Order: sequence, then C-alpha cells, then structure tokens
Amino acid sequence: MSNQTTHLSRIVVNIKPVDPQWIKKAAERTSLLVMPPRALGRLHDVSEMICAIQQTLSPDIGRKAFLVMAGDHGVVSEGVSAFPQEVTGEMIKTFLSGGAGINVLAGQVDAGVLVVDMGIKPELDLAAIGENNRLIVRKVAAGTENLSIGPAMTREQAETSIITGFDIATGLFESGIQVLGTGDMGIGNTTPSAAIGAVITGCRLADMVGPGTGIDEQGLNRKMDVIQRGIDVNRPDAGDGLDVLAKVGGFEIGGIAGCILAGAYHGFPVVIDGFISTAGALVAHAITPDVTDYIFAGHCSEEPGHRLMLNHLGLKPILDLGMRLGEGTGGALAMGIMDGAVRIFNDMATFKEAGVSEKKSQV
Amino acid sequence: MSNQTTHLSRIVVNIKPVDPQWIKKAAERTSLLVMPPRALGRLHDVSEMICAIQQTLSPDIGRKAFLVMAGDHGVVSEGVSAFPQEVTGEMIKTFLSGGAGINVLAGQVDAGVLVVDMGIKPELDLAAIGENNRLIVRKVAAGTENLSIGPAMTREQAETSIITGFDIATGLFESGIQVLGTGDMGIGNTTPSAAIGAVITGCRLADMVGPGTGIDEQGLNRKMDVIQRGIDVNRPDAGDGLDVLAKVGGFEIGGIAGCILAGAYHGFPVVIDGFISTAGALVAHAITPDVTDYIFAGHCSEEPGHRLMLNHLGLKPILDLGMRLGEGTGGALAMGIMDGAVRIFNDMATFKEAGVSEKKSQV
Repeated sequence: MSNQTTHLSRIVVNIKPVDPQWIKKAAERTSLLVMPPRALGRLHDVSEMICAIQQTLSPDIGRKAFLVMAGDHGVVSEGVSAFPQEVTGEMIKTFLSGGAGINVLAGQVDAGVLVVDMGIKPELDLAAIGENNRLIVRKVAAGTENLSIGPAMTREQAETSIITGFDIATGLFESGIQVLGTGDMGIGNTTPSAAIGAVITGCRLADMVGPGTGIDEQGLNRKMDVIQRGIDVNRPDAGDGLDVLAKVGGFEIGGIAGCILAGAYHGFPVVIDGFISTAGALVAHAITPDVTDYIFAGHCSEEPGHRLMLNHLGLKPILDLGMRLGEGTGGALAMGIMDGAVRIFNDMATFKEAGVSEKKSQV
Repeated sequence: MSNQTTHLSRIVVNIKPVDPQWIKKAAERTSLLVMPPRALGRLHDVSEMICAIQQTLSPDIGRKAFLVMAGDHGVVSEGVSAFPQEVTGEMIKTFLSGGAGINVLAGQVDAGVLVVDMGIKPELDLAAIGENNRLIVRKVAAGTENLSIGPAMTREQAETSIITGFDIATGLFESGIQVLGTGDMGIGNTTPSAAIGAVITGCRLADMVGPGTGIDEQGLNRKMDVIQRGIDVNRPDAGDGLDVLAKVGGFEIGGIAGCILAGAYHGFPVVIDGFISTAGALVAHAITPDVTDYIFAGHCSEEPGHRLMLNHLGLKPILDLGMRLGEGTGGALAMGIMDGAVRIFNDMATFKEAGVSEKKSQV
C-alpha cells in the first residue's frame, strides 16, 4: 500500500470524540448566566460544543477561513446539469475577484476565502488571474471519469484528494485559523453527492436526487438513471468511505472530507455547508464516525436529500433558509450565529455579577 | 375622544402596504446575480422586501437600534411567573450596564440598545444608575392592574402606551436609524401575551399558553386558569386591538405595537423578537393589517404558542433555534442574516460583471 494509506490510517487513529466533561463544565458556566435556564436554546449547545472541541471555557472562533474546493465531473457528459462545464473555471475566477456569494457572506464574518483546484478540467491561466495567492492548485486529475460507466477515480486518487484537503486545512489551523468552513464548486457535483448520499445513508435514490442548479423534470429523471447506472456498475461498499468516494465521488468532495478529518484531528470546529459539503462529511464519517463531534451543519439546503444526509450524521442544521447555492454560503451565515453563541458564553453577565434575583423555588 | 385617538387614527390612515412594483424590480436585479435562480432562498425575499419598504434598489440597514420595552404586570400576584417581580427593574439595570443577552447580541450587529420604562413598578434611582442616557422613562403607570379580575389598563392608557412607542421609534428613525428591533422585559409578560394571542388568533388557550421563564406544570395550569378568568371577566373584542391591549395586555406590549406602527408609517423595517414582541405585532395588526409588510419575524420562540401567532400574521420566522429569552435577542441574531441578505443584493457580481456563462436552455 502507498504512503498515503499509512498517512490516512495514522490520521484516523488520532481522531477521538470530544471529552463530555468539557461539555458538562461549559454547561455549568451557562447555568450562571443572567437568564432563565438555557433560554438561548441552540446557542448554548453550539458554544458548549466549541468549548469541548477547543478544551477551554474561553472559546474563540475569531479567526475564520473558508476553503472552496473545486472539481469537474466526467458525468456531466450525461446531461445532468443545467449549467455548462466551463462555469466551474469561470466561477473560480469570480471567487478570486471577490464577486461570488461566498465572498460576500464570508466577508460579513471576516473570514478569508481560499480556492483549491482539486481537479477542474481546464488549466487556469494563473498569470491572467493576477491575484492568485487565494488560489491553491492541487489537481488530482483534470476532472473525474464518468461515474455512470465506471469508477469516477482510482482508490489512490480518492486517498490523494482526502490527504490534499487534510494537508491544506492543517496548514490553515497551524497558521492560527480557529474555525474552518467548507465550500464547493463543480458543475455537476450534485450528481456524485447524491450517489454518495444514497449509498451511505441507504435511502431510496428518488429521495436523495434533486434538481441541483435547476434541471427540469426530464433532466431529473435522466440524472436519477445516470446515478442508478453508476451504482449498479461500480457497486460501492457503503462501509468503506474511500471506496464510495473513488467509485461515485469527486475530487472536491474528497478534499472536503479531508478538511473535516483535519478539524477533528487538530481539534477545531468545521462548518459544513449544503449538499456537496455534507457528501464530504458522509465520506469522512464512513472513514471514522468520531468526526461528527467536530462538525457544525451550517444550514439545511433546499436540495431535498440534504436532510436525510444530516439525519444520518446526527447533525441538526443551524439555519433553514431555503438556500441551495453551495460555495460555503450557508456555512458563512451560520458562522455569524456561532459567533453570537460564543459571545453569549464569554460576554454575558452572571446573575451574581448583574445582581439579579434568581428563580423562585417552584410555588 | 382624546387627542391620542385622533393621533392614532391619523397614523393608521397613513400606513399603506408596500408597492409590489418595488418587489418586482428588486427581483429582476436578483435574477442578474451570478448564481442559479434565487439560489439563496429566503435571503432574496428579505432583501427584496427591504427594497420595497425603503423604495430603493440600494437597500441599507446599516444603522440599527433596539428598543427594549419594559413593564410590570399586576397579574404576577396570581403566581404566574417563575421569577420574582423585582427582576424587571434589576434586568433594566443589567441592560444599562451592558451585561444582558440583548447587549451582547445587539453589539454583534453594531446596534444600539435603548431601554424604555413603559411602566415598571419601582421608580428607578436614575442617579445611582449613572449611565442613564440609554434609559427613557415614560411610565404609563407603575405596572398594570391584575387582568384576571378586571382590565389591565384603561383604553386611554392603552392608546398612550402605543403612541409612546410610536413617538420614541419615530425619534430613532428621524435620527437616522434604518432598522429597528423590538425587545421586551417584564416579569409575568408571557401571561398577557398569551391572552392577546388566544383572543386575536382565536386558538385554544391550551395551545397558546406555555411555561414562559420556566413554571412547572402546576404553575402552567394556574396560568391558564388566570388567563381564562381574565378573558371571561373582560370580554376583549378580538377585532379591536386597543380593546384587547387595554383589557388583557401590558404597557410594554403597547409600546412594541407603537414601534411597529412607526416602522410602517415612516417606511422602515421592524424586526420583532419572540412571544411578547409578537403579541405587540398582533395588536398593531388588529389596528391595521397593512403593518405586516414592514415586520420581519426574527425567530420562532420555544414558547409553544408563538408559531400560531406568526401564522396569524402570515410571517415566516428567519431563525428557529429554540430560544425563549426575549429582550430582542432573536431579532438581533436575525439582523445578522438580514445584513447578509442586503450585502448579497448590493455586493454580489452579476453574470455579466463576472463573465460567467448563463444557464443552458433545458436539454
């Protein structure tokens, strides 16, 4: 086996669930704050989980970054997307010039946006792009193979895509980033994501496949047929995350799985976005289920299968706003809520500090 | 009739629904942005409604404020709250010293917090409080009467509380505030709010009454009985918002209704918080239903009747995080989402600007 396999197994062995004692200690602090018991609901769950991840009662997610993982998909030749494949590369340029949705929403929470070419089809003209310090080129290959007729990639490429994501995220954490958001770009990538979702959750394909960027009903039926053929021809093993990723996945999805493994390995929260990011989370979870303690589900996507994916992971989304853009946009908005949760934990006065009377014993 | 009635009717006559042409124009702008059609879901609805309220395609909600309306309730003597009545005044001091939940979350969106004594029981010692430029004292009376044995206040006091809220909010809008959040403080105020909710929505009392700050089941039954007696003895007229407010309401709830009328009158969005703010919205809506175009429901509270109130108003909450603190906290968090919506509308590139290929015609 390759070094990469060793590397991945070494990663997995070092991922542990959070220590529930930290959640308990954090909840004790919450109970002192000047409000009825746990009156800010989910905000307390979020802040206490961040405490447990960071092993502190002074949680800090001030330094934020997004990794937008980009890849192209051979299966696009089957007519599964409403947009032409060139858009993947065109959107990367938009991310780099700052005009995309993720730039706007990451800017609001003061998060940096880095774009990773995990394997798009064209070679980007770096000289022409100019500001390329926000672009990291780590092409595993120039797009995946058509998953409806054979594996999307080799098992080795699947490992490489995960390790690439892991290494880039590790670099960010080592540079001081305290919370990482995952984003995606790749025309056609709801197709491999739905395939991963159906295989790993075991749900009916019809419940997992949706319109993506906006195909019509005929296209939706074609997409469903394409994924069914892909599953039939490849027979991915639901218990083997690498196998599922290799057979019906994508390079950016592997990269996202690597980001999640890095968060869990180094002890930082990772905020996933919608359908594609959660497909990455399913792959990471199939590799080692303990990753879920480190994942925050930013939102529930309009893509119908997303809720099934989140249920499989046992994650409750922070937002539910009918969004379906990807790029990390739902995660960016959710980071604002997470910031609020951390501020409440750190900055709200206690009953004692405020001199406010506590609850009566029940009358 | 008093001048105040004239004043209120003059307000009402000048409140109009937004012009749907502005929503249409704003949606046309949204359709140019570099993403699949309306891919950010609710964010587009929010930004387009703000455009229509402000009659612009350059919406701006940068300057924000919260009015935390405070009042005490005679009905507290019936044992309807888990906290002692002194807490209303103690919490006002906490708002003024900056340690409460609303201070923390309003700070996150750079919103000011002003507290209005609409009618709490004690006289606050302003000299001792020190920083009292954030406190506005406009006591309608030192707490309401016990609504379970007669009207909570006179019809004239109900008008005064609404006009007071209207005037204070008007002052904020005239000073440049572009979006107003409503908050509340008043031990016992889920009792009048549930009474208002049951009367105006017409739902069963058992579906509207919840534990508030945390009474036990015995307390909950007592609370339900107290409200039922209040409705039986007062016979509020569901079609007459002033009558409902006077008979089973509270001064801070009237103040909140006034804030909402001010937003609708002057053309600014108002973000309501949870159960008590929405009771204020029900009163404003009963006075003139056109106010709903100007209201954003910040969140859905954990208090079980809140969803029924929002349904009656036809409002969909932005957040649903199991919160039940009040003070305006849900509205403050939601303002972050509204900021994101406005940023997307104003700052995201168009397909043309980004040079990105548009959707294929369906294949």
